Amino acid sequence: MLRRHSAREGGILSLAQGIVHWSPPEEAMAAALRAMSDRDTSSYCPDDGYLPLCDALKAKLEAENGLKQSEVMVTQGANQAYMNTVLTLLDQGDKAVLFSPFYFNHQMALQLANASIELGKVDEDLLPDMQWFEGALQKGARDGEPIKMVTLTSPCNPTGVHVPPETVKRCAALCEQHGAWLVVDNTYEHFTYGRVHHAPEADHIVNVFSFSKGFGMMGWRVGYLAYPPRLRHEMLKSQDTIAICPTVMSQKVAIGALEAGRDWVLERVGALEESKALVRNALEPLGTANVLGGSGAIYMMARLGEGVNDAEVVEWLVAKHGVCTIPGSACGAPGFIRVCYANLADEDCKQAAERLHIGLRELCEHGMRY
Amino acid sequence: MLRRHSAREGGILSLAQGIVHWSPPEEAMAAALRAMSDRDTSSYCPDDGYLPLCDALKAKLEAENGLKQSEVMVTQGANQAYMNTVLTLLDQGDKAVLFSPFYFNHQMALQLANASIELGKVDEDLLPDMQWFEGALQKGARDGEPIKMVTLTSPCNPTGVHVPPETVKRCAALCEQHGAWLVVDNTYEHFTYGRVHHAPEADHIVNVFSFSKGFGMMGWRVGYLAYPPRLRHEMLKSQDTIAICPTVMSQKVAIGALEAGRDWVLERVGALEESKALVRNALEPLGTANVLGGSGAIYMMARLGEGVNDAEVVEWLVAKHGVCTIPGSACGAPGFIRVCYANLADEDCKQAAERLHIGLRELCEHGMRY
Repeated sequence: MLRRHSAREGGILSLAQGIVHWSPPEEAMAAALRAMSDRDTSSYCPDDGYLPLCDALKAKLEAENGLKQSEVMVTQGANQAYMNTVLTLLDQGDKAVLFSPFYFNHQMALQLANASIELGKVDEDLLPDMQWFEGALQKGARDGEPIKMVTLTSPCNPTGVHVPPETVKRCAALCEQHGAWLVVDNTYEHFTYGRVHHAPEADHIVNVFSFSKGFGMMGWRVGYLAYPPRLRHEMLKSQDTIAICPTVMSQKVAIGALEAGRDWVLERVGALEESKALVRNALEPLGTANVLGGSGAIYMMARLGEGVNDAEVVEWLVAKHGVCTIPGSACGAPGFIRVCYANLADEDCKQAAERLHIGLRELCEHGMRY
Repeated sequence: MLRRHSAREGGILSLAQGIVHWSPPEEAMAAALRAMSDRDTSSYCPDDGYLPLCDALKAKLEAENGLKQSEVMVTQGANQAYMNTVLTLLDQGDKAVLFSPFYFNHQMALQLANASIELGKVDEDLLPDMQWFEGALQKGARDGEPIKMVTLTSPCNPTGVHVPPETVKRCAALCEQHGAWLVVDNTYEHFTYGRVHHAPEADHIVNVFSFSKGFGMMGWRVGYLAYPPRLRHEMLKSQDTIAICPTVMSQKVAIGALEAGRDWVLERVGALEESKALVRNALEPLGTANVLGGSGAIYMMARLGEGVNDAEVVEWLVAKHGVCTIPGSACGAPGFIRVCYANLADEDCKQAAERLHIGLRELCEHGMRY
């Protein structure tokens, strides 16, 4: 279990947790203020979500993601959206593919649902390996243990890679061909640094989205699902059992965020390039070839080397150099660390990068001994 | 699946959903206003909950519930608290007892966790039958299929009965003796109409609480767990996977609610006696002996009679008389309806009761044909 930190805690600077350094747009906070006096803010809303938000999301999904047929369900963050989906799609023992490195909460959700997890291969760029996936689908069918669901995190946490539209489409086609569900976690849809993000739509595809990162709304806990209408009855069961409905105030804040819109987010994402360069430079002692990611989401992965205990290195970096990262072994990538470049701004980010650089240089100079 | 209604919808008056007609205390709304300008309102807080709320809850649990050893975890409503607990305590196929009539979301949570549900008996007052329970524990042990967990909803939804402290204690003792977990859902702890509420504490007991009903905070989605410290590591896994953390703004509102405190709630609960009398009178055509509950929570159960299709009666009452109730068959009590007397105030409540009275009189006059 990873403890959730704030970005500054007890003199430690954190490049660990996946958060952004900005707060929600003014429009969101104005919506919150207006909602304070509404009586319905304190009442349950429909299970699917507060109707005006659902309508706004349908418009957003069509205009920005090209999703026209999907049902919408608002959840208490993207994690709950994924949990609803897993409980809806999988029975105990059903086989689910997670490409590794994976987002650790995906693994935990599948474990809680007693699914049988098959770790999927990635290629040298850390992209899901579609050749491996086709083989695994075929083998599953042959063995009478078909793959029931696969998860794509696009852009990817923890690898920090943008997933090209053709990879997403190939994965969707393979799933359709083999009767598997495809779940795409689009939490980082805005974080593509000029590249095209593709959320696929079909009767076998569930899309997860989030307000947390793009709009700086982590603490408000708003995510949502765009999913095939045929799943609605079962999705409502999970939703009612876990959440009844999401926090109504947070949903009104989300409406305000949608008013600020995609451009507001893209402006902030664009400004991350500077932090990314700082952090990339900090990882340089490990050698350029060992620094991966940076094309999507807010992460880079750095290879420490075969047999290096990443958890111990992370602890050493905290204790000796006051900078926090995530051990790759928490997300299926032993021997790596995951570094987030979005959770600190300006001077803090500079200082954290400097600490990391000094720490890694020391580590390399001592032959990876700490 | 039951659809969640607002209390007034399209001319229908609802005595269906378990809600209260009041809004949160002024202190809660003042706390919300103050929180608007805090940067940390938009950030993640620790998984267990916002620290000042956790501290306030520990003080409340000790002062009002006599719970001194328990860990506290804040959740997005009592439903998520229960789901966390089920996922923490049960593996697939584990046997869990639900006394029937039961709260339908408890059943759904156990189903989603692939637990094996054993429905427990209640006595003629609709109280959990401890003689049956002892026998079931013994039989489970004999058959090598032990009961792993039992749920007490105290006071009870849907039956509307207050659970006496001696019943709770007897249940806790039996669970301890047989190595079973006891989960007590105290959502309606304030709704005892002068009777003593008892939340037990021991190393095998998990207590669920809610801000929704007492403080009129349904839309803010705040519940919490008081649970044995030895479960913390596992509880954090469920929490992180489903919620990461609860909505921070809602937790600040909850701190304000605790300032208003128990007396604020009890004043409103006391004033429910009038609505209860109105609704009890409305059920009178069915015969006094067929009207149960009213000693706890916000419900009464009314027996329509053996073989009467309660779901059809509920639909007929909506269509013909414009008043909505819950079919008993949704909560393990076919042939009954569940009526809530807290979700409408004053004239609306009077009118709803009158509609129900006329409807039930018509039903009885026609020999339960509709």
